[in-house]
Amino acid sequence: MGSENGCTMEENDELWEQLRYEAKCDADAELALASYLYATILVHRTMEQALAFHLGNKLSSSTLSNTLLYNLVVDVFMEDPEIRDAIRIDMRAVREKDPACVSYCHCMLNFKGFLACQAHRVAHRLWSQGRIPLALAIQSRISEVFAMDIHPAAKIGKGVLFDHGTGIVIGETASIGNNVSILHHVTLGGTGKQGGDRHPKIGNGVLIGAGATILGNIKIGEGAKIGAGAVVLIDVPPRTTAVGNPARLVGGRRNPTQLT
Amino acid sequence: MGSENGCTMEENDELWEQLRYEAKCDADAELALASYLYATILVHRTMEQALAFHLGNKLSSSTLSNTLLYNLVVDVFMEDPEIRDAIRIDMRAVREKDPACVSYCHCMLNFKGFLACQAHRVAHRLWSQGRIPLALAIQSRISEVFAMDIHPAAKIGKGVLFDHGTGIVIGETASIGNNVSILHHVTLGGTGKQGGDRHPKIGNGVLIGAGATILGNIKIGEGAKIGAGAVVLIDVPPRTTAVGNPARLVGGRRNPTQLT
Amino acid sequence: MGSENGCTMEENDELWEQLRYEAKCDADAELALASYLYATILVHRTMEQALAFHLGNKLSSSTLSNTLLYNLVVDVFMEDPEIRDAIRIDMRAVREKDPACVSYCHCMLNFKGFLACQAHRVAHRLWSQGRIPLALAIQSRISEVFAMDIHPAAKIGKGVLFDHGTGIVIGETASIGNNVSILHHVTLGGTGKQGGDRHPKIGNGVLIGAGATILGNIKIGEGAKIGAGAVVLIDVPPRTTAVGNPARLVGGRRNPTQLT
Repeated sequence: MGSENGCTMEENDELWEQLRYEAKCDADAELALASYLYATILVHRTMEQALAFHLGNKLSSSTLSNTLLYNLVVDVFMEDPEIRDAIRIDMRAVREKDPACVSYCHCMLNFKGFLACQAHRVAHRLWSQGRIPLALAIQSRISEVFAMDIHPAAKIGKGVLFDHGTGIVIGETASIGNNVSILHHVTLGGTGKQGGDRHPKIGNGVLIGAGATILGNIKIGEGAKIGAGAVVLIDVPPRTTAVGNPARLVGGRRNPTQLT
Repeated sequence: MGSENGCTMEENDELWEQLRYEAKCDADAELALASYLYATILVHRTMEQALAFHLGNKLSSSTLSNTLLYNLVVDVFMEDPEIRDAIRIDMRAVREKDPACVSYCHCMLNFKGFLACQAHRVAHRLWSQGRIPLALAIQSRISEVFAMDIHPAAKIGKGVLFDHGTGIVIGETASIGNNVSILHHVTLGGTGKQGGDRHPKIGNGVLIGAGATILGNIKIGEGAKIGAGAVVLIDVPPRTTAVGNPARLVGGRRNPTQLT
Repeated sequence: MGSENGCTMEENDELWEQLRYEAKCDADAELALASYLYATILVHRTMEQALAFHLGNKLSSSTLSNTLLYNLVVDVFMEDPEIRDAIRIDMRAVREKDPACVSYCHCMLNFKGFLACQAHRVAHRLWSQGRIPLALAIQSRISEVFAMDIHPAAKIGKGVLFDHGTGIVIGETASIGNNVSILHHVTLGGTGKQGGDRHPKIGNGVLIGAGATILGNIKIGEGAKIGAGAVVLIDVPPRTTAVGNPARLVGGRRNPTQLT
C-alpha cells in the first residue's frame, strides 16, 4: 500500500528503519502483539503512512471514518516537510528525555503526548489553510481520545515532549518553542472572556512541571523552569525558575530538579 | 426520521435554524466533513434529535448500543421542557463567553463540556426518577468519554459553561447555579469518607478558574471568582475573589481577570 | 462459556454471588440495561471472567481485539492468586470507603479507578514476566480509556481506592501500600530526566487528596494524609498531614478531614 497515494519513502530514514526493527523484534517476541504490530507499523512503507494509519484509527469515531482521517493526515504529512521533520525530532526528544520510553516503537504506538502533538500539527496546518471546521473536528477528537485540548491555531515548535499528556490545555494564541518539555495537567490558558492575543508564549528549552497553570499573554523565557503546581501570571525571565501559587521567581542559580 | 418517536419541532427554534445553517455552510465548504455533518445534524428535524444522536454515538460502547442511548436521551429530552430550555441557554452561553467558540455548530459537535453537561442532565433526570443503575451507567460513560465525572444527583443550573472539560469532578450533593463558568480540572468535592450533604454549593454567576479544588459543604456566593489552582475550604461571600492554596479572600474590589 | 479456558469458580465467592445478585436485581428493574448486565456479568461463571470480559471490551481498539485482551487478562487472573485476592479486597475497599458507591456491581461496571487498577495488575504481571511491549500496550490503553497513566512496573498493594481516577499518573519506580486512597489528578512522579529509582513510596493507609503532586524518591509514611493540591517534595512521617504548595507538615494531631 502507499504508492497509490503518492507517499514516498524518505531517503535514509534511519529513525523509521530503527522503529521497524524494534517492531519486528517485538512481533517476534510477543505473538499476542504480532498482528497489531504488522497492521500498525510493519505493513507501512513510511513513517508517515504508519503514523497516519495509527492516528486515523485512534481519532476515528462512528461518524468520522478512519479511512477519511488516514487520507487527510497522510496528505498533510506529504505536503509539509516541516511536519515530517518535526515528527522525527519530537520522537527523538521523547526517546532521549523520558526515561520511561524504551524504544521509538514504544513512543509511536503508546505515547498520548506524541500522538496528540502530531495530530495537532495536522490540525494546525488545516487551520492555517482556512479549513476551520475540519481543524476543530480534529482538535475535538484529540481532546476526547487523548484528553489533551490543543487549539489548532496554537504554534508548537520541534523536539517537544508532552509527558503523559492527560489534561494538557493549550489556548488559541499560545506558542511553544523548540525543545520544550511539558508535563501532564499543564494549562497555557487565557484570561476569561477576553479575545485577541491572550495566551502564553513559551521560549525554547523551557520545562513545565505537572499541573502548572500559566495564564495570560506572558512570556516564559528560554530555558526557564516552571515548578509542578505553579500558577504563573507574570513573565518569567530566561533560565529562571518559577514555583508556587501564585508563582514567585527563584533565580537562575537555584535550579530545582524536581519539576515532574 | 424522528416523527415516529414523537419528537416535535420547537416552534421558532431560531438557534436550531442557525445551527443547521452553519452546518450546511460547513458541509458545502468542507467535503471531508459533509457526510459527518449530514448524519449528525442536517438529517435531524430537531435540536433534540441531533443532540441525542450525537450523544448516543459518543457514549455508546460495545455493550451499550447507540440506538438504546439515542432512544433514552431523546425520550428524556421530549419529556422535560426544562432540559430543552437548558440546552439552548447553555449553548448560547458557550457561544457568548468562550472566545474560542466559532459557532453553535462548533459547540454542539465539539465541546466536551457542553456535551457532558447535556448528558448529565439526562442522567440527573433518570436518577430523580429512581432509575439509579441507568443514571450511573451514563455517568460512567461520560467520565470515560469526556473525562468529566459528574454524579447524576448533582444539580446544575442553566447557562453553564464547562470550558475544556477535562478532569472536572462534581460530587453527589453539589449544586451549581445559573450562568456559572467552570474551567477544566475543577473539583467540587467532598470530605473523604463522610456521607450526607458534603459538597459545595455554587451560586449564580460564579467563575471558577482552571484546577481549582473546592471541598466540603460550603457556599460560593453569587458572582464570586475562584482563582486558578485555588484550594477552597471555606465559604466565599458574593462578588468576592478567592485565590491560593489554601485560598484566601481578596475582596470584592480586587477583581483579577486571570482566572482561566 | 468459560469452562473451556480453565476458569474455575472460587469456592464460596460471596462477593461474586452478591455482585451477581445486584446485577440480577438491576436487570429486572431496568430493562434498558438488561442486555448489558447479562453480557457483562450474568453470563459469566466467575468474577475473573466477568472482569476480563469487561476490561477486554473497554481496552480493545480497532487493532487490539477484545478477544485477545479477554484471553490475556483471564489467563493472568487464573495464574495469579494474589491478583484474584486483590480484586476482591479492592472492590470491598471501594464499596466501604466511597459513599458514592452504591453496590459491588456499580464498582465493577463503572469505576474507572477500580478498572484501571485491575488492568494495571495484569500489565504489572506481564512486565514482571518480561513481556514488556505487551505491558506497555496495556498501560497505553488504560491511559487512553481511563485517563490514568500507571507505569506497569509500579507496585500497588491491596485495598486501594482510586477515586474518580481521571488524571492519575504513577511513575515506574513508585510503590503504593495497602489500604491507600488516592483521589483524581494525583501524580506520583519523578524528577525530570533522572533515571533509576526516582518515584515516591506510599505507605499503608495513606490518603492522598485530589490534585496532590508527590515528586521524587521520597517516603509517605503509614497513615499520612496529603491535602488536596499539595506539592510534596519531602518525606512525610507516619500519621502526619502535609498541605500546601510547597507542602508543609502539620503534625499528627491536626487531622483535617477535607482532603477530597
